[in-house]
Amino acid sequence: MKNLSKWIWMMALIPWFLCSAAHAQNAPPNRSLEKQFDSHLSSADIKARLERLSARPHHVGSPYDKENAEFILSQYKTWGFDARIEEFSTLFPTPKTRLLEMISPVKYTAVLNEPPLKEDRTSGAVAEQLATYNAYSIDGDVTGDLIYVNYGVLSDYDELERMGIDVRGKIVITRYGGSWRGIKPKVAAEHGAIGCLIYSDPKDDGFYVGDVYPKGAWRNEFGVQRGSVADMPVYPGDPSTPFVGATPGVKHLPLKEIKVLTKIPVLPISYHDALPLLQSLTGPVAPDHWKGALPVTYHIGPGPAKVHLKLEFNWDIKPIYDVIAMIRGSVYPDQWIIRGNHHDGWVNGAEDPLSGQAATMEEGKALGELAKTGWRPKRTIVYCAWDGEEPGLIGSTEWVETHADELRQKAVAYINSDSNGRGFIGMDGSHTLQHFINDVARDVIDPEKNISVWQRARAARLLASPPGEKNDIRSGKDLKIGALGSGSDFTPFLQHIGIASLNIGYGGESEGGVYHSIYDSFDHFIRFVDPTFAYEVALAQTGGHAVMRLADADILPFNFADFAETVSGYLGQIKALTQNMREETLELDRDLQDNVFTEVADPTKAYRPPKAQDPVPYLNFAPLENAVSTLRKNAEEYQKARFDLEESGRKLAGDQPMRLNEIIFRTERALTKPEGLKGRPWFIHKIYAPGLYTGYGVKTLPSVREAIEQRQWDEADQQIIVVANTLEAYSREIRQATAILQSALK
Amino acid sequence: MKNLSKWIWMMALIPWFLCSAAHAQNAPPNRSLEKQFDSHLSSADIKARLERLSARPHHVGSPYDKENAEFILSQYKTWGFDARIEEFSTLFPTPKTRLLEMISPVKYTAVLNEPPLKEDRTSGAVAEQLATYNAYSIDGDVTGDLIYVNYGVLSDYDELERMGIDVRGKIVITRYGGSWRGIKPKVAAEHGAIGCLIYSDPKDDGFYVGDVYPKGAWRNEFGVQRGSVADMPVYPGDPSTPFVGATPGVKHLPLKEIKVLTKIPVLPISYHDALPLLQSLTGPVAPDHWKGALPVTYHIGPGPAKVHLKLEFNWDIKPIYDVIAMIRGSVYPDQWIIRGNHHDGWVNGAEDPLSGQAATMEEGKALGELAKTGWRPKRTIVYCAWDGEEPGLIGSTEWVETHADELRQKAVAYINSDSNGRGFIGMDGSHTLQHFINDVARDVIDPEKNISVWQRARAARLLASPPGEKNDIRSGKDLKIGALGSGSDFTPFLQHIGIASLNIGYGGESEGGVYHSIYDSFDHFIRFVDPTFAYEVALAQTGGHAVMRLADADILPFNFADFAETVSGYLGQIKALTQNMREETLELDRDLQDNVFTEVADPTKAYRPPKAQDPVPYLNFAPLENAVSTLRKNAEEYQKARFDLEESGRKLAGDQPMRLNEIIFRTERALTKPEGLKGRPWFIHKIYAPGLYTGYGVKTLPSVREAIEQRQWDEADQQIIVVANTLEAYSREIRQATAILQSALK
Repeated sequence: MKNLSKWIWMMALIPWFLCSAAHAQNAPPNRSLEKQFDSHLSSADIKARLERLSARPHHVGSPYDKENAEFILSQYKTWGFDARIEEFSTLFPTPKTRLLEMISPVKYTAVLNEPPLKEDRTSGAVAEQLATYNAYSIDGDVTGDLIYVNYGVLSDYDELERMGIDVRGKIVITRYGGSWRGIKPKVAAEHGAIGCLIYSDPKDDGFYVGDVYPKGAWRNEFGVQRGSVADMPVYPGDPSTPFVGATPGVKHLPLKEIKVLTKIPVLPISYHDALPLLQSLTGPVAPDHWKGALPVTYHIGPGPAKVHLKLEFNWDIKPIYDVIAMIRGSVYPDQWIIRGNHHDGWVNGAEDPLSGQAATMEEGKALGELAKTGWRPKRTIVYCAWDGEEPGLIGSTEWVETHADELRQKAVAYINSDSNGRGFIGMDGSHTLQHFINDVARDVIDPEKNISVWQRARAARLLASPPGEKNDIRSGKDLKIGALGSGSDFTPFLQHIGIASLNIGYGGESEGGVYHSIYDSFDHFIRFVDPTFAYEVALAQTGGHAVMRLADADILPFNFADFAETVSGYLGQIKALTQNMREETLELDRDLQDNVFTEVADPTKAYRPPKAQDPVPYLNFAPLENAVSTLRKNAEEYQKARFDLEESGRKLAGDQPMRLNEIIFRTERALTKPEGLKGRPWFIHKIYAPGLYTGYGVKTLPSVREAIEQRQWDEADQQIIVVANTLEAYSREIRQATAILQSALK
Repeated sequence: MKNLSKWIWMMALIPWFLCSAAHAQNAPPNRSLEKQFDSHLSSADIKARLERLSARPHHVGSPYDKENAEFILSQYKTWGFDARIEEFSTLFPTPKTRLLEMISPVKYTAVLNEPPLKEDRTSGAVAEQLATYNAYSIDGDVTGDLIYVNYGVLSDYDELERMGIDVRGKIVITRYGGSWRGIKPKVAAEHGAIGCLIYSDPKDDGFYVGDVYPKGAWRNEFGVQRGSVADMPVYPGDPSTPFVGATPGVKHLPLKEIKVLTKIPVLPISYHDALPLLQSLTGPVAPDHWKGALPVTYHIGPGPAKVHLKLEFNWDIKPIYDVIAMIRGSVYPDQWIIRGNHHDGWVNGAEDPLSGQAATMEEGKALGELAKTGWRPKRTIVYCAWDGEEPGLIGSTEWVETHADELRQKAVAYINSDSNGRGFIGMDGSHTLQHFINDVARDVIDPEKNISVWQRARAARLLASPPGEKNDIRSGKDLKIGALGSGSDFTPFLQHIGIASLNIGYGGESEGGVYHSIYDSFDHFIRFVDPTFAYEVALAQTGGHAVMRLADADILPFNFADFAETVSGYLGQIKALTQNMREETLELDRDLQDNVFTEVADPTKAYRPPKAQDPVPYLNFAPLENAVSTLRKNAEEYQKARFDLEESGRKLAGDQPMRLNEIIFRTERALTKPEGLKGRPWFIHKIYAPGLYTGYGVKTLPSVREAIEQRQWDEADQQIIVVANTLEAYSREIRQATAILQSALK
């Protein structure tokens, strides 16, 4: 029965399915306007801007951070934008004492310093550079045996337990990678560790990958990755002002009441400093997938290496300067297309974030040129240069929290970028915008290949896909975009308000192991990232076209069928996840009953068999199945009505366009629930969230998926109903939109 | 129809299927005899013997090689065996000149020497040690740019071609691993290289794996892997006397006429010597799966490192001393159960081969004790201690070639071992003996766990298997044994004569990166390999029980159904291989036509898209399908008749047992074809062969599989018929055996 009805549906939908790739918008993009826009893009201007912005260190609270904000402001004003700086005040710790020493079996005092290089002109600005540290580590003075815990994620601790090794009372040394860095001290503390070191193993971004800086692009032995370690999957932004904008004068929580600071002191180090520590560990040899590229046998310990870690920070409140620049819409001034990229860096930040910022500003410049010729967008365009992204998406979060009500009303979409480089287009975001951003990419020419960036991305996907998945890509269908987790400024828009969001950028051919170090410089960028600035221009084209198309569309190009198909896929994933967990649990149980683990174990090595786990019950997925089924049907009806209207040549009349568009862009709000996710109420989106134990990595249908992963079966059953209800509400919005289209067809 | 008839068959066979695990032999093994045998096994005796045999270097031609042979001979004589030394004379080159120097961009002269260690008592016998070299490299004096080619197997050169890199006129540096070492210079020469270095990367058996010797078990920076590089997949044994036994006075081919010598000079080096060379390479960074564990960025080159390699050898004829020790069978003296392990080592060879030799001799000792009580085996037992295995299975090959006619008549089975260590039983061989060796393993107790070694191996398989394959193992069915490729002395027995063979040994928990170095010593063995010698005793039990059961069985315990099922699996593999190649070829063609490779390629890097390949035709597998189907049917009929005879309590009478047993053990001969494999007529087995480009790794149904892999479609079609005919002949043998059983049942 179900299959039959599905078949009848598909027959009815063939016309728009066949044509959807070419005509999903009722008015085609204004290509002559886009050509005009493109004509104003200048790689030379971007290059000069990047050099200007990256000339000095510009972290939060630094003089050049403010200077850059004022420079960006003046530029947008010059280009005719209505621009202003919005200032916030945020907790921003900087290092006061940093001591790391091995006290036995041999003495070693860590260097904790990145030396200037004569080949890198800005690396010598020592006085203005932030020392190497992890922001929002607590103060601490700890001494203990060292223990190597690989990436320091949950599964690593499971392996330690199997080896009979306990980290309680120990100082863990982890390597960067495998998760967002803030997860490492969090998980370490949960397991009883008293301190956490994070080093950059050359396997991940050093000599193993390529020649090191300045000979090559990759992290040299002294390079250190700075970065925040606040518990951002709980909430981002100023740790001392959760949920409210940190406007000047706001009340800040005292340190003791801030839940997202680390529980133990944390320090990032170079592999120069890690090597003597790792060399002094004994105990079991680490499993192969734990081993890095240092010329040592990776032992786990604990000890005999004993280290002393002492950290003290200046816990200051510092100003944040967001630049907000607008062009008011001529038809729908209260429908905002928001484009953003941050401007603060950990040091000089040429690639992160200025490669994105310099290109985004080029969009602003070109839009300004268009405006000079009399062009006005139908919707309001808002360009944002965020401060304080590095310590925790602070500029964007505080702005979003401050303007939450207005954004709920007006925000159509948010388009983010961050770093940018040479190579392939990256597109992630809300799946309602999947078809839209595919179309944008189809019209941008790859500077290296003279084919579209879309076609090049398609070719890369083809090469990476197993044979069974190639035909879908060959057919010319849209490329599937990834879901957004966290790690950049889209998070507050998408996951705290429910604004359809995209994150775009180029990469894959640029080289670099200078992330968050003093070597992320203009000199590095022009040698290894995008020497001709051609992909800087490509990003400006991509972002600019997307903004203009969204701003000028008669009917906003949201595609609900794409979203429905994607959510249906996520549902399939969590069902498969549950089934796999069920089978694995049964297999484990059988293996335990058969004594298989103890029969195999080497008696000369400490070993504990895994623990038996509770059986995985059958969950009632029916509510979600039904909700997804309804969603698919409603979404397809909407897309069909949209197509029929276009084919009919009729137009919406009166307040119909305004009403329709408002429904369309507010649908994403219907995917949120005010109570938020379990234990982290700030995250209210029911489809996309960063994982509580991944940090950047996305968990789709997060309340259900994480409950299942954490074996909270009752919670999972309840959340299936909550998410089902969310999707039902979303379907109702779509039906309202469809009704407007259908009334115009009568 | 087919499925139905199969079902009817299965119904008929249920009784013996149910009981086959317990009763496949018509007389159960004599467990009280085996207990008696076990009571004579002494870890102390094995330890003393291992220390004695490994006290001095004992390579081919050395004084201690001869002393060891004489010692082994005297021992077997003491134990009551009819023992003798058979001497052969073989070409055995030893190094005269070894020079490796980098002449630019920096000067470096390779050390080419393993230093003695105070922690290793035998490592100081410098005067008797063979210098580090690869036997059967040709003399040469070459200078050229260096180029890193990973493991130096065919697929590595494919990747080089994709990067636009050519090795012609260059000296390649390869790392050990990925294939048998002799493949590396062979493939290098085929691609135009003029010299070949092979180094031991610490990733494969050095500090990456564990602490290095003498602190730990693994290869230190100066350790070098000696070894033969003759083209053994063409023929093993004395290179100068193919096909004939190198008895004293035989005519040796002049060097120029020997086809299995390398075409270019080859030298093995340590990673101490490889490091400066690899550090001096530039050019593209190697792909990740090419990278080792040295603290360098692995570049491919070619150059600017330019090296000079000069090698000269003493091309001497040296004596080989095989020890052959027999106990004459009381009932079937002309049915031989042969057990072997080599005694020559590259240096002191405590693990390789003496851990196997010392245990095998313990079997001889215990059999001697049984004989003193009056016991005589029904069949003749032959214990062999081979010389010259290291340079190329020479002792065993020359003996087999010399006694080929007699072996064709008399050899029932050959059971090989080589090195041995702590851990899990390893069982490979002819699948007619799969059930037999499983039963042997079911009755040997694991010294660490007090369960059978079979049960422990089963547990390890369970843990390593995906869920879908676990139930078969859980059901208690026999563990599948692997097919034999090459790399030890079973090769001439199995692949040149067609004698059912097994290779057995323990391992997986011992540690070591001392293979073929001066550090493979008694001191290393007692710390890292099998400190209590408990697995030495386990090997003696396993080998001894297997020999006794084969020697005393009323009806030889060959199981043709296991063989049929396995061959059926191989047929499935090559059909799937062909289909995969067909689909990959089509996909490649489509990707090429779509320009996918050029669209993706980074224009700043040299790159060539892969070449289009000829389409894969549909091969006529029907003859082989039919032959396998007949084989399965005949094999099942045999096993059923075997079971019925047992159940009936009747006995074979008159010459029936003799005739039946002779048919049984000569079936393996029916799997050979005198013309041998294409281009390598010495290898005549149609089911098992070492791969022409793997060296050790097996290729089952080799004439068909290699033709397909090499895209020789006509050859494949022809060989399908040849192999089908071979299996038909084999089935006829089985039917004869079945007829004897059935006549006894009438």
